[in-house]
Amino acid sequence: MKIMVINPNTSSSMTEHLRKVLEERKRPDTQLSVVNPEHGPLTIESAFEESWATVNMLGLVKKANQDGFDGIIIACFSDPGLRASREISDIPVFGIMETSLHIACMLGSRFTIITNRRERVPHKVQQVHELGLGNFLASVRPLNLSVQETDSNPQVAKRRIMEVSRSAVEEDGAEVIVLGCAGMAGYEEEIEKELKVAVLDPSTVTLKFAEALAEIGLRHSKLGLFARPPEKEFK
Amino acid sequence: MKIMVINPNTSSSMTEHLRKVLEERKRPDTQLSVVNPEHGPLTIESAFEESWATVNMLGLVKKANQDGFDGIIIACFSDPGLRASREISDIPVFGIMETSLHIACMLGSRFTIITNRRERVPHKVQQVHELGLGNFLASVRPLNLSVQETDSNPQVAKRRIMEVSRSAVEEDGAEVIVLGCAGMAGYEEEIEKELKVAVLDPSTVTLKFAEALAEIGLRHSKLGLFARPPEKEFK
Amino acid sequence: MKIMVINPNTSSSMTEHLRKVLEERKRPDTQLSVVNPEHGPLTIESAFEESWATVNMLGLVKKANQDGFDGIIIACFSDPGLRASREISDIPVFGIMETSLHIACMLGSRFTIITNRRERVPHKVQQVHELGLGNFLASVRPLNLSVQETDSNPQVAKRRIMEVSRSAVEEDGAEVIVLGCAGMAGYEEEIEKELKVAVLDPSTVTLKFAEALAEIGLRHSKLGLFARPPEKEFK
Amino acid sequence: MKIMVINPNTSSSMTEHLRKVLEERKRPDTQLSVVNPEHGPLTIESAFEESWATVNMLGLVKKANQDGFDGIIIACFSDPGLRASREISDIPVFGIMETSLHIACMLGSRFTIITNRRERVPHKVQQVHELGLGNFLASVRPLNLSVQETDSNPQVAKRRIMEVSRSAVEEDGAEVIVLGCAGMAGYEEEIEKELKVAVLDPSTVTLKFAEALAEIGLRHSKLGLFARPPEKEFK
Amino acid sequence: MKIMVINPNTSSSMTEHLRKVLEERKRPDTQLSVVNPEHGPLTIESAFEESWATVNMLGLVKKANQDGFDGIIIACFSDPGLRASREISDIPVFGIMETSLHIACMLGSRFTIITNRRERVPHKVQQVHELGLGNFLASVRPLNLSVQETDSNPQVAKRRIMEVSRSAVEEDGAEVIVLGCAGMAGYEEEIEKELKVAVLDPSTVTLKFAEALAEIGLRHSKLGLFARPPEKEFK
Amino acid sequence: MKIMVINPNTSSSMTEHLRKVLEERKRPDTQLSVVNPEHGPLTIESAFEESWATVNMLGLVKKANQDGFDGIIIACFSDPGLRASREISDIPVFGIMETSLHIACMLGSRFTIITNRRERVPHKVQQVHELGLGNFLASVRPLNLSVQETDSNPQVAKRRIMEVSRSAVEEDGAEVIVLGCAGMAGYEEEIEKELKVAVLDPSTVTLKFAEALAEIGLRHSKLGLFARPPEKEFK
Repeated sequence: MKIMVINPNTSSSMTEHLRKVLEERKRPDTQLSVVNPEHGPLTIESAFEESWATVNMLGLVKKANQDGFDGIIIACFSDPGLRASREISDIPVFGIMETSLHIACMLGSRFTIITNRRERVPHKVQQVHELGLGNFLASVRPLNLSVQETDSNPQVAKRRIMEVSRSAVEEDGAEVIVLGCAGMAGYEEEIEKELKVAVLDPSTVTLKFAEALAEIGLRHSKLGLFARPPEKEFK
Repeated sequence: MKIMVINPNTSSSMTEHLRKVLEERKRPDTQLSVVNPEHGPLTIESAFEESWATVNMLGLVKKANQDGFDGIIIACFSDPGLRASREISDIPVFGIMETSLHIACMLGSRFTIITNRRERVPHKVQQVHELGLGNFLASVRPLNLSVQETDSNPQVAKRRIMEVSRSAVEEDGAEVIVLGCAGMAGYEEEIEKELKVAVLDPSTVTLKFAEALAEIGLRHSKLGLFARPPEKEFK
Repeated sequence: MKIMVINPNTSSSMTEHLRKVLEERKRPDTQLSVVNPEHGPLTIESAFEESWATVNMLGLVKKANQDGFDGIIIACFSDPGLRASREISDIPVFGIMETSLHIACMLGSRFTIITNRRERVPHKVQQVHELGLGNFLASVRPLNLSVQETDSNPQVAKRRIMEVSRSAVEEDGAEVIVLGCAGMAGYEEEIEKELKVAVLDPSTVTLKFAEALAEIGLRHSKLGLFARPPEKEFK
Repeated sequence: MKIMVINPNTSSSMTEHLRKVLEERKRPDTQLSVVNPEHGPLTIESAFEESWATVNMLGLVKKANQDGFDGIIIACFSDPGLRASREISDIPVFGIMETSLHIACMLGSRFTIITNRRERVPHKVQQVHELGLGNFLASVRPLNLSVQETDSNPQVAKRRIMEVSRSAVEEDGAEVIVLGCAGMAGYEEEIEKELKVAVLDPSTVTLKFAEALAEIGLRHSKLGLFARPPEKEFK
Repeated sequence: MKIMVINPNTSSSMTEHLRKVLEERKRPDTQLSVVNPEHGPLTIESAFEESWATVNMLGLVKKANQDGFDGIIIACFSDPGLRASREISDIPVFGIMETSLHIACMLGSRFTIITNRRERVPHKVQQVHELGLGNFLASVRPLNLSVQETDSNPQVAKRRIMEVSRSAVEEDGAEVIVLGCAGMAGYEEEIEKELKVAVLDPSTVTLKFAEALAEIGLRHSKLGLFARPPEKEFK
Repeated sequence: MKIMVINPNTSSSMTEHLRKVLEERKRPDTQLSVVNPEHGPLTIESAFEESWATVNMLGLVKKANQDGFDGIIIACFSDPGLRASREISDIPVFGIMETSLHIACMLGSRFTIITNRRERVPHKVQQVHELGLGNFLASVRPLNLSVQETDSNPQVAKRRIMEVSRSAVEEDGAEVIVLGCAGMAGYEEEIEKELKVAVLDPSTVTLKFAEALAEIGLRHSKLGLFARPPEKEFK
């Protein structure tokens, strides 16, 4: 089985980190291609940056379809370009936010998303409602660390993730923690042990989910929401 | 990996059918144990029957925990005993309704559930709302065939499933079809081809999902909704 | 008028307490039969225990139908077996949770449920949403006393109920307090006087409601959600 | 027990009809005072008319409080002046729409309201949503008979009510029918027998409910939504 | 363009204040007629007072229609009589609550309403839900100043508005502040500058909105919810 | 007042049409600049095309900010790039879908959106829910004419719009019609007269709304959902 994992930003160190994490967790018979677009923003922390990331990664989606891949994962916790990618793709496309949140719904009564910056909280809350999962949301809580700080300072990141998770459990009633940034992967087990919650690294669970669905050939409906765009002139 | 699949009714022919379908679809390294409780109703078409099925299968849940299983699937499309099972289990328990509906949400804009009897329609609609997924529901449509008729008369069943799916697409705007009864498995591909919708056999997708989650050791939170019941006297 | 009140657990002291409370509040012409099943859990604090309580009380539901009762009350604040009971009953069946919450909705803008154990909070929140009444919920707050402690230590129970009610009013905006455990009955008036909220003992209000509906012969629809299960084989 | 039933319009024939219906259904020990305001619209079929009916009936609410009544029923299926009445009343005030719809929610999975005029349908739908009960609504269907035609032509009214109820059941999935106009009372039993739905006459069920709550002295919270208005100057 | 602005209470000083504020903000070519009914409550802080205000202002609505006005604004932040006014009006009628809340929805992710008295908070929350905008609500927070205190003590009012706005931003996640009482107009800019939120004075934004819609002749649908009441006898 | 109207596609004939319509409806003192990006899709009928349109128009948003404009309108009925534009803009940005739907909510009880192609219906329904306005939606109905056919064949377009509007009113209960494609402008009055509904041309109402808000300097909150993206490297 061949899965393309697209890191939609242009940080090759994050792509590398993602590859390392996912290579360890893939099935033996899964072939991963972890890539990022050549152009676009170094990290994605706004709708503005999502827009640029989207158009830059659409070529990779097309390529995955041409090169016989069995599935595509968009590995940024705001699912940039998910709908557009599904429209132009015949193979299934998975967003790590959508996938991990639906899984979170099944593992406990309410989930908390941990995100990087305080300013992103309203955006995440909004996206949860747009996905139709507002009833399952305990809270969105910020680390108050930028994506790069999280990446470069794992000790601080880990301590903050633990603190924030504990507040989510004790003050917001969270039973599931979703690590809403690729850079947070790897701390799941410790938090689980300490707080008795379920903890999800979105990239990891989405990889397992993609493998599972790709194996049985399940695909998105092409009838309506994800119908292929009509051929048309571009200037 | 060892997965116990519990058919909560006592029809050994349905258990057999389920075993046959799932044995073909499991991963090579998955060991399936497909079982049904010794006592209880022959089929499950009411809350009354769900109650009896539940208490009769709880022993199997306990046994799966003792015998080193990695996950449990409750293979009846009303998820009888799902919450109780999770409370007494340290390994993950998957309901085929909950699992397949969350997956359906990701494959197109609205799903239709096909159920057996007309009288069950309000119950299914109710359950979708109780799961918090009412916004994703296109409709619940009955086959107007009993579980046993569906089982024993595959030609009629298949024709009816196709008719009902077509109505769901054309009249209710469904983009995803969920085959809401174990006996309907096996027709997915033909409907997909004919109607361009995504079609889910709940048992199959739940098996793949259970394998995926069990592989990475993801479990339900034991903090609140699924906390272990306190020890107590039974008369 | 003959009403059967079923305490679904097997604690005869709780059944006795319930009988005492309700005998004082019934209409003069109402004949109460307050009973509990012979077998099952001593108290009900989990879905697991609800399952066992349900199957053990279904015989009492059948008996009430045969013996010419006019209505049945399930007197446990999680309404175990309510749907199953309605399916097999031609006389109306009332759950004290469902009934008291609908009444609470009419007495003020938001209600708070007081429950026994902290672990049960997510379950109660979930049930309010499943009943479709999430918009009316101010909060669920725990006493942090077990059912048995509440029962055996009325002074402590009373003080805690008052404290928790006050927090519900001041912090959560509750205008109505629902005493979510049979053992809390009897403190309504004092809380009402002190806090100016409406306070409901679910068993009491459900008895009055059951008498009212039984008097005019109003029954559940048997068309769909509560249709009688088809005759079928049990093993 | 003394209950004041206020018909908020000024049609003394409707008041008479209401008195006749409710006198037959009250408890022996209930004293009914069925009244209408002296001034205001002859029937109520718009928000404009509701406004006038409201101010004209508020004096009756005050009088009921002064004269030692135990409860007040506002007997018009749009609950005009319900909130204002509760603010100025220390005894409980019941609206026949709010009360009957909450009861309808408990008798089956979805209810249909039958109203008089087609133009009123959006208003009723809106009110169900404002009450927070939109999830329980199957449909609102018009009789296409004015309040007066319904009143003066019982044969036609009865046939139309049966037709409309049948459509509600067969096309909208209704399991409960709410007769949304005082003039429709009296046909409940026949519809129930013919269609196997539950049928509610709002005035009747509200009377029984009011008797039940008044008996145990349960009242609206005066903390917030129904707090007494501050004393103030009127010009 | 001629716009009638109705202050539905009978405080001529508030009418005067409103006129002063709106005269400064109207378009040069707009003719304003700012009026209040002759009779009714001096201020409006309950549903009871809303009822009296409504019937007293309906004559002004009729007059605006007869005198060739292009639009009507009901300038009280609970929109008393809005639906009734629309029914009897052929020209558009705007409520300052409905209008300003829809606009608030577009200026940031969640809004907070500042109201005068603590007792009014549940009523405002209720109204936001009745308008169908509950998803956009961060909170309703009281000034704990009466309408008259706000009016007569601008320094205190301003300091309290700033404090409450800051709490709304920091504790409730508000991005938009709606000044829910006519007397609060004039402080918008300072709060905006200090807190970087959007701040709305409902009367001002409704005037601009009314001018905009009146200019292109857009009117309410008269098909259903706002259909003209049938001619009928009043006693 | 200077307003930039961005047609996000690259069809200069549609830009021309838009200019013509809006020039007639603008205030005398409004200066319009109606533009389209140089590059991108000729029409926008998918999320894929929205992505490309977005990045191509963001430069125009920046330019409007630099050139002293008072507001920006994105004139495509799927609001492509609305959030991104608001993030990078200090002047208010209006989407014609969001604006017209909020206005539609105030003009009658439910609205119907008319869109071009049947395949786009699920996307529109989805967007209404994402905007949080699902409760106000009667239906989305397709013309079954492409954007270009609508543009080039006004007679056919007009007849179809009337037919579809009539179905929306009679079958779906619509009281407001939103013409969900720029090419449909100009038929509002005729439909209004024939069907007594309110009819909105989104571009027109958004222009009037933008003028109204720009006049009083009301802007989007820059605190959270529309906070300016941090400076960062692009590759």
